[in-house]
Amino acid sequence: MNQRMSSQNLDKMDKLVHFKSRFYNSNNEIYMDGNSLGKLPIQTKNQISSLVENQWGKNLIRSWNDHWLELPKRVGYKIAKLINADKEEVLVGESTSVNLYKLGCALVASKIFPKQLLTDSLNFPTDNYILDGICKQYSVSKPIVISHNSDLRADIDILKKKINDCSGILCLSLVTYKSAYRYPMKLLNDYAKKNNSIIIWDLSHAVGVVDIDVKKTNTIVAIGCTYKYLNGGPGSPAFIYIKKSMIKKLNSPIQGWFGHKRPFDFSNNFVPADGIEKFEAGTQHIISLAALETGIDITLEAGIKNISNKSKQMSTYMISKIKNELTPLGFILESPENFDERGSHVTLSHEHSWQICQCLTNPVGNKIKVIPDFRPERYIRFGLAPLYLSFNDIKITVQRLKEIVENKEYENKKKGRPIVT
Amino acid sequence: MNQRMSSQNLDKMDKLVHFKSRFYNSNNEIYMDGNSLGKLPIQTKNQISSLVENQWGKNLIRSWNDHWLELPKRVGYKIAKLINADKEEVLVGESTSVNLYKLGCALVASKIFPKQLLTDSLNFPTDNYILDGICKQYSVSKPIVISHNSDLRADIDILKKKINDCSGILCLSLVTYKSAYRYPMKLLNDYAKKNNSIIIWDLSHAVGVVDIDVKKTNTIVAIGCTYKYLNGGPGSPAFIYIKKSMIKKLNSPIQGWFGHKRPFDFSNNFVPADGIEKFEAGTQHIISLAALETGIDITLEAGIKNISNKSKQMSTYMISKIKNELTPLGFILESPENFDERGSHVTLSHEHSWQICQCLTNPVGNKIKVIPDFRPERYIRFGLAPLYLSFNDIKITVQRLKEIVENKEYENKKKGRPIVT
Repeated sequence: MNQRMSSQNLDKMDKLVHFKSRFYNSNNEIYMDGNSLGKLPIQTKNQISSLVENQWGKNLIRSWNDHWLELPKRVGYKIAKLINADKEEVLVGESTSVNLYKLGCALVASKIFPKQLLTDSLNFPTDNYILDGICKQYSVSKPIVISHNSDLRADIDILKKKINDCSGILCLSLVTYKSAYRYPMKLLNDYAKKNNSIIIWDLSHAVGVVDIDVKKTNTIVAIGCTYKYLNGGPGSPAFIYIKKSMIKKLNSPIQGWFGHKRPFDFSNNFVPADGIEKFEAGTQHIISLAALETGIDITLEAGIKNISNKSKQMSTYMISKIKNELTPLGFILESPENFDERGSHVTLSHEHSWQICQCLTNPVGNKIKVIPDFRPERYIRFGLAPLYLSFNDIKITVQRLKEIVENKEYENKKKGRPIVT
Repeated sequence: MNQRMSSQNLDKMDKLVHFKSRFYNSNNEIYMDGNSLGKLPIQTKNQISSLVENQWGKNLIRSWNDHWLELPKRVGYKIAKLINADKEEVLVGESTSVNLYKLGCALVASKIFPKQLLTDSLNFPTDNYILDGICKQYSVSKPIVISHNSDLRADIDILKKKINDCSGILCLSLVTYKSAYRYPMKLLNDYAKKNNSIIIWDLSHAVGVVDIDVKKTNTIVAIGCTYKYLNGGPGSPAFIYIKKSMIKKLNSPIQGWFGHKRPFDFSNNFVPADGIEKFEAGTQHIISLAALETGIDITLEAGIKNISNKSKQMSTYMISKIKNELTPLGFILESPENFDERGSHVTLSHEHSWQICQCLTNPVGNKIKVIPDFRPERYIRFGLAPLYLSFNDIKITVQRLKEIVENKEYENKKKGRPIVT
């Protein structure tokens, strides 16, 4: 991409431009929060209505055989395609936290790797909380939290040194939630393997927008959420990926009936399923699960490589505009400049971050609304969702940021924050 | 109730008769499977549409503050009312299996009771599987499965003796899934307490139809599902109840961010919430959770005492008809005759159970469909949901059973069963 190209020309060349109409869009609003909750696909609304009325309302209990028993595997297969996993390697259901818990416990109990849990200071806090809980439960020493010098990027040498010193089970977010820093997945997987360690990759901020290839990167286990770039809806079920050769060696701590080899035999003893279904537990939340499927279908239709390419173009374009127009105004780019080290959100900070955020979301008069999100203490994140955002949206966003600071609009906004920012 | 009253008169006296119109009903079909999946409330369909379009589609991420953060507690409070718990004692979310897992682990880790898990042969198998998994994880001896002489009812003396011999943590289904046998809750809770033990009550087959009073019965902990008599939809989130004085002493093994005291501070260390929210883990499945609320609202509106009274009348009426008309034809009543020992489903068996079941669900010609469910090897269960079933529905069901056997309709049906029966 020529960085001096106009947003107009970039939009003209955008192969994915027509996908915007597949989503519910509001007038006079640019939604840059796809990295916390993706938009509603129009088709999802119809899909849910139909499921509720026909499958639940009319067909009732018969829908378990007709539709719902196969749903987790079918949706899992679609996610598998997105990350180049095999059909039987991905299972959808429950939350990312519960999936990380199950996977972490399974790895500790398997005794394949030393019982040392590790994570780093860039990981999303809930991953650290979950690991901490596992350590308490197995009475092993607390997780080691590898500290990097900044929120911006990981120091790979420090990571390697720690893996070398303390082999074990490491959990990392492929794309970090603050800066969108992206780890060198293959390099670290290979290094971990050499050092009798394994990495659990949390793909939450990456799946659906980064072209992940679990085979090429030698990834063995991963988890992730689906309500961001996969547009699965609020709290849509998460997923778990386990490489086929590893499935046999791992067992879920939560031995629910849906993980049984033959759940509807109602037998007295638990016999785990042979495949990844053994990580299922209770009855799946069918309506939330069905809502998710359409979002993934659109992603597959657009093609993850096309999406990932557009993501690269978008963040490159945005960063170039930030450097030209915003850094002189006191904004600091908090995301890596090199695309190979970056996911699909761009993070800024500013002395008046929170107040600037409020100006974007609640502008005075008829100015366009821009919805980013905010992470304490000072980060404004702009999620660049290639399926429904244009280069012009980015241009307008940068313009708004510029005028908010130039005109000191932020001085009229409060410093206090609500619960979710 | 005068047992000789006609179904017509009973329906005339039924205060809840108008609630049927609040549900989606199919013509020429009597749905007796509310004990596996309740019907769709009309209002739920509108509720979900509105949530999807307005809260997700239009309001997007802002709905977390505006609507969704409070949802689990609000719905939890409504369930609390149904079982006479306090507002802060019930939390909704995840599946029954995951909730039992969390509660079981929390109790084992608390060391308040001996680390001996127990259950009985009448409990739903997944509860046993979950306990078995917990035992493996904590390296304690396998759960003791107390065996009763029949599937029909528990032998209270055997239970007491076992509690006396092996104090610990016992899990029982208040209403058993096969026969609908109902335990004497208070008697057993008090006996457990005297013997340094605690009972985890699985309320799945009881909540929304049995008038449960956790206070009067001295119940300390319970779990339950909501897709049966609460009409929450397929895989609607389950719930967990913990008596206030016990909440402080228990901690969830799954330390997810929603169980944190201040999740949106994104702090490094896990500090559990003070209240029952500490048992939350990841992001709630909002669409499934919202679908559940309407079902509970209807139950609260009808009144659990009215529902429970009608349930008693219905099962008493059905059992009296079974004894008069069906036992001479080889049917065996597999539910307790005494209402105080019974939930709201009535179970029958017959030499040709499975084939009879198929005649009910797929009759020849224009005969009315009756949808019960089937539990191997020989049980046909009829779930009597007072909100949408009439005494006439029961009369017709018994008539159908009679003619199926008298006319040997079952001879045309196959013996093989699908996955979910």
